[in-house]
Amino acid sequence: MIRVTFDEMKKEITRVLIKNGFTENKAIISATLFAKASLDGVYSHGLNRVPRLIEYIHQGWVDVHAEPTLIDVNGVIERYDGNFGPGDLNATYCMDRAMELAREHVIGMVTINQTNHWMRGGNYGWHAADAGYIGICWTNTESSMPPWGARDPKLGNNPMILAVPNKDNAVVLDMAMSQFSYGKLQVTRLNDEQLPIDGGFNDQGDLTRDPREIEQSRRILPMGYWKGSGLAFLLNLIVTLLSKGNSTATLDQMKPETKVSGYGVSQVFIAIDPNALSGEAFTKQVVENAIAHFKEAQPSESGSHVSYPGENTLKRRKENLEKGIPVDQLIWEQVLQL
Amino acid sequence: MIRVTFDEMKKEITRVLIKNGFTENKAIISATLFAKASLDGVYSHGLNRVPRLIEYIHQGWVDVHAEPTLIDVNGVIERYDGNFGPGDLNATYCMDRAMELAREHVIGMVTINQTNHWMRGGNYGWHAADAGYIGICWTNTESSMPPWGARDPKLGNNPMILAVPNKDNAVVLDMAMSQFSYGKLQVTRLNDEQLPIDGGFNDQGDLTRDPREIEQSRRILPMGYWKGSGLAFLLNLIVTLLSKGNSTATLDQMKPETKVSGYGVSQVFIAIDPNALSGEAFTKQVVENAIAHFKEAQPSESGSHVSYPGENTLKRRKENLEKGIPVDQLIWEQVLQL
Repeated sequence: MIRVTFDEMKKEITRVLIKNGFTENKAIISATLFAKASLDGVYSHGLNRVPRLIEYIHQGWVDVHAEPTLIDVNGVIERYDGNFGPGDLNATYCMDRAMELAREHVIGMVTINQTNHWMRGGNYGWHAADAGYIGICWTNTESSMPPWGARDPKLGNNPMILAVPNKDNAVVLDMAMSQFSYGKLQVTRLNDEQLPIDGGFNDQGDLTRDPREIEQSRRILPMGYWKGSGLAFLLNLIVTLLSKGNSTATLDQMKPETKVSGYGVSQVFIAIDPNALSGEAFTKQVVENAIAHFKEAQPSESGSHVSYPGENTLKRRKENLEKGIPVDQLIWEQVLQL
Repeated sequence: MIRVTFDEMKKEITRVLIKNGFTENKAIISATLFAKASLDGVYSHGLNRVPRLIEYIHQGWVDVHAEPTLIDVNGVIERYDGNFGPGDLNATYCMDRAMELAREHVIGMVTINQTNHWMRGGNYGWHAADAGYIGICWTNTESSMPPWGARDPKLGNNPMILAVPNKDNAVVLDMAMSQFSYGKLQVTRLNDEQLPIDGGFNDQGDLTRDPREIEQSRRILPMGYWKGSGLAFLLNLIVTLLSKGNSTATLDQMKPETKVSGYGVSQVFIAIDPNALSGEAFTKQVVENAIAHFKEAQPSESGSHVSYPGENTLKRRKENLEKGIPVDQLIWEQVLQL
């Protein structure tokens, strides 16, 4: 493991993206998002994901030149076709438009269909919250998780982001529908560890903490068992209806060569201006009061740190800004050669 | 256990509500909601809850004469003060207004503060979906659940409802933030059973399936562990900011005599017209296709039935309409004497 500064990482990814057809402006926006993901500790969707994006570009699954095109406008709702452009740029465009609509109408909703994997969804929540907006967004995905009570995948992992502004410490929840990601299973296996709680089923249909068994069965557990299973189903339905886009079902029915992660998915971005509704002082007071109240909770016997969503992100961001971002040397060399 | 017809239950609750100061019209609306909860199998928030409502009315915590008053309008967003009126009537008013706004603007959002427990939240989702709208609503509550990693309650159970229309089988998720309700713990204990999975912590801080231990410790488990913990925190923040209402923190700070379930809470109701966005044929096709795709899932080894959110509700509704609604005889007699 080596450490790379945020600026160095951003510069290097920018170079790779320009080399692969991005305009300089777009390359900087995308590289910043990748580097921010790594900076905040979401390594799986930061630098580590760059080689796969480049592969997708070469395969023709991501069109670096495509931009969102407006489908229709219904009051505070704008809908776009993503034209299979880079998912992170499309998503940034949508959250920006949602915030512009919210500036005018207090609330704005933007949907996009036929877009690509947005990489780290939390980026769009932080983006909205840092600009003073409540940000809500989610995406559907192809199937990757069995419904509760079933053995084969029929649900997307449909990450959902909820973000609330606060001057120095926005509150941001970035939550996939499985209890653990496959990335977490891999890391746990490489460390020769067990998961802290059940993370899926083995081939015999028993709940297990062994990452190997779950990687083998591909039967990852929805968070909250039947609850995450139901939530994943509803989030997919709603975003498909709102965007007139592909559903998990139609994504699964696509021809095999396009059955790649996050290809042609549907997304929704909602921004709401809390200051326009209730004033800046109220917003500040509510969020600070909620954090203070939460922090009164006594840690459990295990002595764990009780943290609100986004708190650990800010800590990691600070640490990685100071010390540099931890990077797998092999991946860094791989990116240097792209 | 006896069985009571839907009409008989509705008629009896109507009588009780009129006797306790409701106008006939309001009594019928509220009694229908209580009876519908029982009809759909949500017994804890149907007939069984009527005695507690009457107690709250007598204590002055629910004002049977109060109606929502408009605070302000911002485009598609209307905000109301609930004036501590009956929570179910307030919530019905809000979802109706959200649907009227959506009829005009495709989307409508209505918030309410200083309202009371809405009883079965799913009612408002079914109400929206049956009228052809996507319905989204949630409420905050006083603290009843420890955050992940903590031992004392600092989170509300903040139920969230997501509903999608479909002619004969709306898809409705009605989800609290704990893995199990205290009602479920009670039923499990009375049957001398264990929970199927961990439902909370015992006094020693260990996860347990024993309902007695959790009832004793009051340390119920957030669904999805840290995920439900984070979601509960965000849902509370957002609804408080949108409604300019009480947060879980301020609800907890209220004077002891008003520390009753769901007193003075904040709620948000969102309705969106999918047909106006994408056409009725698309809506129908997406939902039916998603259900068919979901149903292709092979049941797991335990032979469990794989069901989408709302499916079992419809089954139970049909059965209870035919056979009558199962009712605890003692509770029925208690209501008869109210």
